[in-house]
Amino acid sequence: MSETNQNTPASQTLLNAIDSPADLRRLSRSQLPQLADEVRAHVLNSVSKTGGHLSSNLGTVELTIALHYVYDTPRDRLVWDVGHQTYPHKILTGRRDAMPTLRQQGGISGFPRRDESEYDTFGTAHSSTSISAAHGMAMAAKLKGESRRAVAIIGDGAMTAGMAFEALNNAGVAHGGLLGDVLVILNDNDMSISPPVGALNKYFTRLMSGKFYAAAREGAKSVLKNTPLYEFARRFEEHTKGMFVPGTIFEEFGFNYVGPIDGHDLDALIPTLENLRDRKGPQFLHLVTRKGQGYKLAEADPVKYHGPTPFNPAEGIKPSTAPAKKTFTQVFGDWLCDMAEADAKLVAITPAMREGSGMVEFHKRFPTRYYDVGIAEQHAVTFAGGLACEGMKPVVAIYSTFLQRAYDQVIHDVALQNLPVLFALDRAGLVGADGATHAGNYDIAFTRCIPNMSVLTPADENECRQALYTGHLHDGPVTVRYPRGAGVGAEIKKAMVALPWGKGEVRRRSSASQANGRGAPRIAILAFGTLLYPALKAAEALDASVANMRFVKPLDAELVAELARTHDALVTVEDGCVMGGAGSAVIESLQAQGFTVPVLQLGLPDEYIEHGEPGKLMAQCGLDAAGIERSVRDRFLTTAAPVAPVLRSVANT
Amino acid sequence: MSETNQNTPASQTLLNAIDSPADLRRLSRSQLPQLADEVRAHVLNSVSKTGGHLSSNLGTVELTIALHYVYDTPRDRLVWDVGHQTYPHKILTGRRDAMPTLRQQGGISGFPRRDESEYDTFGTAHSSTSISAAHGMAMAAKLKGESRRAVAIIGDGAMTAGMAFEALNNAGVAHGGLLGDVLVILNDNDMSISPPVGALNKYFTRLMSGKFYAAAREGAKSVLKNTPLYEFARRFEEHTKGMFVPGTIFEEFGFNYVGPIDGHDLDALIPTLENLRDRKGPQFLHLVTRKGQGYKLAEADPVKYHGPTPFNPAEGIKPSTAPAKKTFTQVFGDWLCDMAEADAKLVAITPAMREGSGMVEFHKRFPTRYYDVGIAEQHAVTFAGGLACEGMKPVVAIYSTFLQRAYDQVIHDVALQNLPVLFALDRAGLVGADGATHAGNYDIAFTRCIPNMSVLTPADENECRQALYTGHLHDGPVTVRYPRGAGVGAEIKKAMVALPWGKGEVRRRSSASQANGRGAPRIAILAFGTLLYPALKAAEALDASVANMRFVKPLDAELVAELARTHDALVTVEDGCVMGGAGSAVIESLQAQGFTVPVLQLGLPDEYIEHGEPGKLMAQCGLDAAGIERSVRDRFLTTAAPVAPVLRSVANT
Repeated sequence: MSETNQNTPASQTLLNAIDSPADLRRLSRSQLPQLADEVRAHVLNSVSKTGGHLSSNLGTVELTIALHYVYDTPRDRLVWDVGHQTYPHKILTGRRDAMPTLRQQGGISGFPRRDESEYDTFGTAHSSTSISAAHGMAMAAKLKGESRRAVAIIGDGAMTAGMAFEALNNAGVAHGGLLGDVLVILNDNDMSISPPVGALNKYFTRLMSGKFYAAAREGAKSVLKNTPLYEFARRFEEHTKGMFVPGTIFEEFGFNYVGPIDGHDLDALIPTLENLRDRKGPQFLHLVTRKGQGYKLAEADPVKYHGPTPFNPAEGIKPSTAPAKKTFTQVFGDWLCDMAEADAKLVAITPAMREGSGMVEFHKRFPTRYYDVGIAEQHAVTFAGGLACEGMKPVVAIYSTFLQRAYDQVIHDVALQNLPVLFALDRAGLVGADGATHAGNYDIAFTRCIPNMSVLTPADENECRQALYTGHLHDGPVTVRYPRGAGVGAEIKKAMVALPWGKGEVRRRSSASQANGRGAPRIAILAFGTLLYPALKAAEALDASVANMRFVKPLDAELVAELARTHDALVTVEDGCVMGGAGSAVIESLQAQGFTVPVLQLGLPDEYIEHGEPGKLMAQCGLDAAGIERSVRDRFLTTAAPVAPVLRSVANT
Repeated sequence: MSETNQNTPASQTLLNAIDSPADLRRLSRSQLPQLADEVRAHVLNSVSKTGGHLSSNLGTVELTIALHYVYDTPRDRLVWDVGHQTYPHKILTGRRDAMPTLRQQGGISGFPRRDESEYDTFGTAHSSTSISAAHGMAMAAKLKGESRRAVAIIGDGAMTAGMAFEALNNAGVAHGGLLGDVLVILNDNDMSISPPVGALNKYFTRLMSGKFYAAAREGAKSVLKNTPLYEFARRFEEHTKGMFVPGTIFEEFGFNYVGPIDGHDLDALIPTLENLRDRKGPQFLHLVTRKGQGYKLAEADPVKYHGPTPFNPAEGIKPSTAPAKKTFTQVFGDWLCDMAEADAKLVAITPAMREGSGMVEFHKRFPTRYYDVGIAEQHAVTFAGGLACEGMKPVVAIYSTFLQRAYDQVIHDVALQNLPVLFALDRAGLVGADGATHAGNYDIAFTRCIPNMSVLTPADENECRQALYTGHLHDGPVTVRYPRGAGVGAEIKKAMVALPWGKGEVRRRSSASQANGRGAPRIAILAFGTLLYPALKAAEALDASVANMRFVKPLDAELVAELARTHDALVTVEDGCVMGGAGSAVIESLQAQGFTVPVLQLGLPDEYIEHGEPGKLMAQCGLDAAGIERSVRDRFLTTAAPVAPVLRSVANT
């Protein structure tokens, strides 16, 4: 695509006729470059209007065309790792006209989804799952005697996760005498979301450097001379413009390695894929692509254009002018720098989320105490444990959904040894446009059951800062969870003052007196986290008391008891799953203390919440002020429905 | 050690004088082989009396001596991966005389523990954490300007876990300009607990084959000729009997690779370690050892001698004569074969636990449907997801504690897509001698909060078989959890009959009438899993009703309501953590249905339970029949303490 048609996309004469890959396969090879231009323009136009992932999708246009051109999709299975590079795939598989609904409530997802299209063979969004899934599909085909192929497309960033190696270690060998026909495509664009790190990345760079692979090629030729492989390698090379380099680590894992080839060159891609499609056993294709390809602004700054909000493609992304409220991520980033200034023992670790976790400034100012470990959550946590053993105070900055990747390490390597590691859990609760795959719904349930772990749920920006400080001071593992985006905009106090450990606070006292079953009940709302503010609003309408609980663990059992004693009914509110969540901690405490006061538990339901605008999603879950008020009224205050259909206790004499 | 002195260990003239590694370091090099004999004899003698891990410990005798001889422990840090090979280390670090208490209540642990000895720098027991921890320690030393070394000792089995690769990928490069002085020792004995699998293992075998490394050495020499590295390699080789092979995958990760050398040859080990100790940056030493070394029976069958119960070393392990009750593991193994016979779509996956999970027979009979993926829990689960997408019915056989390794994959790759994967969760609850690191305490809490997941807790052997069948039929993810060892010995019915979905059953009806607060309360015990039987026993004494709940999720809310309606107090019993567990599911349901009946939640406390005899540990937690009875009496039936100090409800007019 030329720069000139970025504002006036090439007319989609080819693309508009493609409603499925079968239509694509009817095109001649010579038409494909034009189709690539049209797809690229469609991606840029759509994303600039809806927001979404851009750089990654501009980088996979030719690959997507080539895959659907060569493979018999959906019969052959394409598994896209992470899946934020699948907009071209969506456009070519019947969802061209749905792109304006991308990532919006009721619209198509930003990731592949099995329930969205038969071409989406595996739902992805978390990194490094594709080889495992494709290997499973390939083995199933063998067991069923089907000749279908499975292809995993994985980026160089995703390849740093241990899970990808576990999969390579399995997919490269036979199981029960059966060897799967799986193709792994390494889409090497020298970029995960943060800049690339680690030894593997250096290795890829060497593989890509002409010097390295030219030498390797020569070496290979002399080794292979007079073998059938040599002849294959020679012919293969001629056909594909690629090259055959034995001795790569992928060969060591049992794969036939081909590459690196230019992933934007359809004349290289298509014959190479045709050749690989017809070969048996595990194949590995190393592609080199450029994130942002074809849109100069994104090429120049792919990080900036990784996941933009709507913008004008002619002008590019402009700095936001309105002085936005600080996000919790920024509050964390500021705290991290201030704390590092004050405490030389602080070190901070991110699994490849420097930008998303607000650590750019920290990295700049404290480079020796900053660790981007790549997409390696398991390592991140145990590495933090090792640092803590030596008296350092590690902060693991991680999204709630990604801590799921290191659950065993949290239990076994940190909490069991009671090591002082602070988990700064960003993106807790619903995350909006990224949808169910990124939702941080479960962390309260899965962290509070871990012995030695403490769990803090700050209610606003300032409390988040103070909670992080409190956690940093604590001599044991602590989780501080906070949501995506901004809070109420509370004034952030520079001074750090530790929160009273394990203590909540009453923020509003109901003026009602206790009804003790006679008349309207006196209600207390126990809020965990940022839902304190809608709870306070609802409480105004309900004349309820409100407690800001702050700690899920250790729970303020005294406050719970006091509220139970002085109220007729309790309501717990949290932006996490109800099952096993903070509300359950409250009712466990009530039962343990012998209280049988009725409790309404409000939180996220036991289902996956789809993508959409966060405020709307929260309202849909009944977790805005109106929803909280409504739920409380429905349960405790309507005359039609009894407050509690059966209310007895051993001692209600 | 000669075979003749297996029954009459060499007198421990050297060993008895060693109370710490400082004593060891005062010995001359020529005394070390005798010391090795004495340590080996002590290991064999101890383990044959206490039970515990044998083969692995016989394999690390010389390595342990060499490490403590060369390194300045505890100042230098040794991190033992998995840690079941640390008996020689324990013997040489002040715990020689504590070996008779190994793995027994109040005795020393079978794994390294920071609170047991300053020489145990990191608690291990789950695989593949050592490089991450040692890298953390090495980076902390750099940050603090200390010259201490960190050494990770990791087996070839543990190296198949992705986490080890994540760690290599990080430890091989500089962070913030700092490169850690870490030594990774690959203890290559061609064996994890199950036979080795995967491409990496084949690679190690090639590295070990004389042909391969001789060729590589020649190649290396010609490449390196006239470089400083060549001279180093030449001299190094002479000094160490090892060799310097560039081009291994470990070199690609940034490590200086040395090996393979004979890990039982102290004359090779000590100079090699001395050389590596004095080098800067990441070092990798490839050792070849033999599990069971020095005890012929264990050398011949290291799997059999992996973790024996007490035996006579002169005779070896004898087949048990008493017809033992079937363990739940065997019940699973039998069901798996029967189900595979009936359903060609069944496939079964184990992360390197063929023996422990009862899959030897299945592997033999259904080799193409059996997948040992190595120590790769993450891959295991997503691979199962891929198979399920293609219409297979995968069974993932995994210990509760190891499912923690694949938590994200369960949520994201299986449950979110509602794929029919059956998780057969062995070792749920306390496991006894392996202690807190292996305890399956958390799975109810961390699985039940996952949408689409079902959680079954069979009460005995027959119900386990039927629950597995029920889970296999279900079109969605299901967890069936069962404990280590045998149950009550219920008769196992060959015929498979699905349990009514989401339904519990009342097993005993109290003959008492409801007290409604006047007099002794009528009590119902809601039991989850095998604690049904002690609950039934306690119920006889208490005249309580008892329900076998069977399902944690979907919970039988109707049964819960019926019991709440007809009893004055409820008791939940489970062999999982109380926090967020099955009892919490019950009280959530009660609150949601408007019941305020008092509930006593019995289960595992919010602390780590140490190793010991399972029955005693359960009694200690109050989960035997006597403990259940006592807790119920204390809470609900003593006159001294009120049943519930504060019992009110909105409607108790």
